[in-house]
Amino acid sequence: MNGTSGARPVRVGVVGAGAWGTALAQALARASKGGEVLLWAREAALAERINQTRVNDLYLPGATIEPGVRATSDLAQLGELDALLAVVPAQFLASVIADLPDRPRDLVLCAKGIEATSGRLMADVAREAAPASRLAVLSGPTFAHEVAAGLPTAVTLACSGGREQWDRLAPTIASPAFRPYYSDDVIGAEIGGAIKNVLAIACGVVEGLGLGQNARAALIARGYAEMLRFGLARGGRAETLSGLCGLGDLVLTCSSTSSRNFSLGLALGQGMSAAQALSGKSSVAEGAATAPILADLARREGLDMPIAQAVARLLEGSAPARDVVSDILSRPLRAEQEPAA
Amino acid sequence: MNGTSGARPVRVGVVGAGAWGTALAQALARASKGGEVLLWAREAALAERINQTRVNDLYLPGATIEPGVRATSDLAQLGELDALLAVVPAQFLASVIADLPDRPRDLVLCAKGIEATSGRLMADVAREAAPASRLAVLSGPTFAHEVAAGLPTAVTLACSGGREQWDRLAPTIASPAFRPYYSDDVIGAEIGGAIKNVLAIACGVVEGLGLGQNARAALIARGYAEMLRFGLARGGRAETLSGLCGLGDLVLTCSSTSSRNFSLGLALGQGMSAAQALSGKSSVAEGAATAPILADLARREGLDMPIAQAVARLLEGSAPARDVVSDILSRPLRAEQEPAA
Repeated sequence: MNGTSGARPVRVGVVGAGAWGTALAQALARASKGGEVLLWAREAALAERINQTRVNDLYLPGATIEPGVRATSDLAQLGELDALLAVVPAQFLASVIADLPDRPRDLVLCAKGIEATSGRLMADVAREAAPASRLAVLSGPTFAHEVAAGLPTAVTLACSGGREQWDRLAPTIASPAFRPYYSDDVIGAEIGGAIKNVLAIACGVVEGLGLGQNARAALIARGYAEMLRFGLARGGRAETLSGLCGLGDLVLTCSSTSSRNFSLGLALGQGMSAAQALSGKSSVAEGAATAPILADLARREGLDMPIAQAVARLLEGSAPARDVVSDILSRPLRAEQEPAA
Repeated sequence: MNGTSGARPVRVGVVGAGAWGTALAQALARASKGGEVLLWAREAALAERINQTRVNDLYLPGATIEPGVRATSDLAQLGELDALLAVVPAQFLASVIADLPDRPRDLVLCAKGIEATSGRLMADVAREAAPASRLAVLSGPTFAHEVAAGLPTAVTLACSGGREQWDRLAPTIASPAFRPYYSDDVIGAEIGGAIKNVLAIACGVVEGLGLGQNARAALIARGYAEMLRFGLARGGRAETLSGLCGLGDLVLTCSSTSSRNFSLGLALGQGMSAAQALSGKSSVAEGAATAPILADLARREGLDMPIAQAVARLLEGSAPARDVVSDILSRPLRAEQEPAA
């Protein structure tokens, strides 16, 4: 599988030392079998603590950092690397890439979301910011603490550079417990991660209203239909959307009752106003940033996405949770796949 | 939507007073607005208790039976009805239909599974047993106790008789909390329910081995791919398989840690032998009956269904759980959609 075996190992780093960036650095260190993985943290004090205590106490407490991981807050050090995994919040990707001293040969996008100011997916943002880099998207059902703990995890690795790029990247990333699967559908690989958080808010609302698991499962199936509709309209492929990065990630996120997105929906479902819910700690939920722009894009492109629209309406405070959910659940009897009347 | 509104109401009954049959009778009684719904129970004593105490203490304790439901153990009474919902275990459908005094105009199949002796889906079984009846399939993400409690539930109602049959059946079945959605894809509507229990066993195994939620979500996405492959090969349509009766039912079943199928897998994952696990109460898990025939069908039809094969191997005791799951989770790096090497 590895077309470059025997060649110089790929020097790799991770930009962003949040929970997911730190867990990915762990996975890379296990794959490298002795090589060094650079982990860039914005806060110098955090980088120092990671190197000294071997724990990221801020974002991934409880996991011992692999010896192969070296943290730094010095962006200049990333300039010498062949491949970078970008694991920063969606809304900061453009500015972080702009700050890099040099563009890596391979830029692997691990941030999930839609840029709220422009409506662009991460690959579009990165293509403009790093035109000379080969882009790839790494996405799948991944709780960071499970990856850090070495529990088995499978992800989609979508390579804009096709098999040639895959042969370079896969051995750098894969270890027995962390398995990437090949795709060349970069667009399709981004859609699931970009939308799932909005649907997780909706699942939280259903839970907050006490509507039960039948309603939640129906919502996930209908949410998947919205994801598919949006993804196909953007040029993604159905088999990517039904894979690890699409359906897999959706299922994991919507069954996680402890996530910030779910918690935000739960508070709305229990009757908290949008203003209150968004002023609390739930305001950092990525889905809250994505929902308005997603609903806007769906409207402009004429796509039937009632759940995304409902979440956007809820977040802008223009309708109470019960009315919005009741609208979704009791639409007139009609074919599952027909567009809205 | 109702082409026959104003016409004589459809007289409807349910064959089978298990948890799901009883819950469906509740839903029908709510839809009928005062009409009578006949609920047939095999045990005369149970029928009598339901009528006297308004509780099905054997299969759905805790739910008060709607006044419109009348239980009977006399099959002859079903002969006068226009529509029957068949809610008996998959392996008994043929014999129950054979025992009916008369074939109803509309026969709605609510049993889920594959006939182990013949490999046939329920519609094939029913078509032979009741050639003059119009068949429909009702399936979706439905915990019986939630339907009985009146929590919102959405299902696929696939009508072999198309819109004409739908116009007759939908008003008989639909109420504000129980929404059928139209399909004419009878085959596609059956596949999800037939396969999901096998995948729930696999999810239980992953849990029993302590492999975490990333692995379970990956398994669900890959299980969905197997469902899609099998369904398309049988002539079902992709949009049906991604709907309530396919993906929706799969998601609900695989997130239910209390089901018999999941419990069976859990015991196997925790190291119990197949012989022990199947001799216990878990032996009534439908997935244990379906897995061997499903694996056999996949082999004969040349379909790549490694999870179904793995569950079948586990149940026949030919491999320990850890080896089988490790085989699935660490297949060589390859494209998600490529057939097995």
